[in-house]
Order: sequence, then C-alpha cells, then structure tokens
Amino acid sequence: MTRTEPVDLYFQAMADPYRRGFVERLSKGPASVKELAAPADVQLPAVLKHLRVLEEGGIIVSEKVGRVRTYRIRPDAFNAVNTWIEQRQHDMNAAFDRLAAAMAEVPEEKDH
Amino acid sequence: MTRTEPVDLYFQAMADPYRRGFVERLSKGPASVKELAAPADVQLPAVLKHLRVLEEGGIIVSEKVGRVRTYRIRPDAFNAVNTWIEQRQHDMNAAFDRLAAAMAEVPEEKDH
Repeated sequence: MTRTEPVDLYFQAMADPYRRGFVERLSKGPASVKELAAPADVQLPAVLKHLRVLEEGGIIVSEKVGRVRTYRIRPDAFNAVNTWIEQRQHDMNAAFDRLAAAMAEVPEEKDH
Repeated sequence: MTRTEPVDLYFQAMADPYRRGFVERLSKGPASVKELAAPADVQLPAVLKHLRVLEEGGIIVSEKVGRVRTYRIRPDAFNAVNTWIEQRQHDMNAAFDRLAAAMAEVPEEKDH
C-alpha cells in the first residue's frame, strides 16, 4: 500500500471546495468551462487546473466539439467510493454484532 | 466556498492509502497504535501523524486508558460523505429524467 492508488486521486480530487462545487454543478447537467467559471471567484487557469484534477480522479469527462469543451460528470463517478464505504460499514456492523453476541454470553449478575 | 470546510479535512484524511488502511482495520474493531502500526511498513511517528489526520477529519476517535491509547472508528464516520454523494446522485437522476422527458417531446420522424 505504498504507491498511489486510483482512489487516492479520487479523494484528493474531492478534498477541495472549488472542485466539489464543480462536481455539484455538473451533477445537474453538462457545462462549459465558462459556465463553470462564472459563479466561482477563481481565474480561468485555476478552474482548468481543478477540472484536470477531477478528470484524473475519474469523476468527470470532457469532450471538445468545435471550439467549446463540455464537461460532464461520469455516471459511475461515485461507484468506487460507495463500494469502499459499503465494505467498511459491513465490517463495522459485523464488529458490532460480535460485540453484542459477546455481551449476551456474559452471565447476568444475580442477587444472592 | 474559499475557506477550509470540515468535508475538506474528511476527503484529505481519506486520500492516503496508509490512512485508508487504518480505517479498514478500525472498521473491524478498536485497536492500539501498536496493533495499527504492526502490519504497516511505516515508523510509529508517521503512524501517529496519520491517526491525528484521521481524528481531525472526524473519522476516528481515541481514548487513553492508563498507558494505552485505543483508537476506534466513529459510528457516523461516513454519514457526511454519504449525504453529499446521495444529493449528487439525486441531481444526476433528475438531470437524466429531464433529458428523457425532453427526448419524449421530440416528434418522431415519420415516413411521408
């Protein structure tokens, strides 16, 4: 577990409020760089850099038609992280069940 | 959206394979630093630093009893990110439904 894994890029991509803002916008439908940059108080080069990080993280894709590049969210954008979290919650539930079973084995204190 | 938000710390905490490894271990039950460090090829100070990042990200908590500090995952560790992802998927579905409705409005081509 020493090398960078795809899920690292994913979480790094999400660890920025601007980038999450772009993901929030793109969840509602495709958009151009101009449309994405308009409500954000950042310059275009910074917007492009954020979008590149999101593309490398496998969260969005872009397509250039003529002079306009359109960004859209990948339909499977959240699959990997959902799967990872589900596995952890499964383990947490199993641990809780083991604890509950162990508690049930403890004899109740009785009045003598 | 310029300042650091709690969810930034969360995603930053998760963007490292060592830290995710510790979360995977702690999902299965509480552990001491020694137990967490044993399977990882990192030195104790680095382990402690990773654990601090996870605590600041609201993913784990620790408690010191006597000389032993025990780490455990927070039961609500994934709530915030699950809520955020659910909202995005809701938006994605709504956008897809609007697209499907718009397509249905387009008159079919007819043979004359």
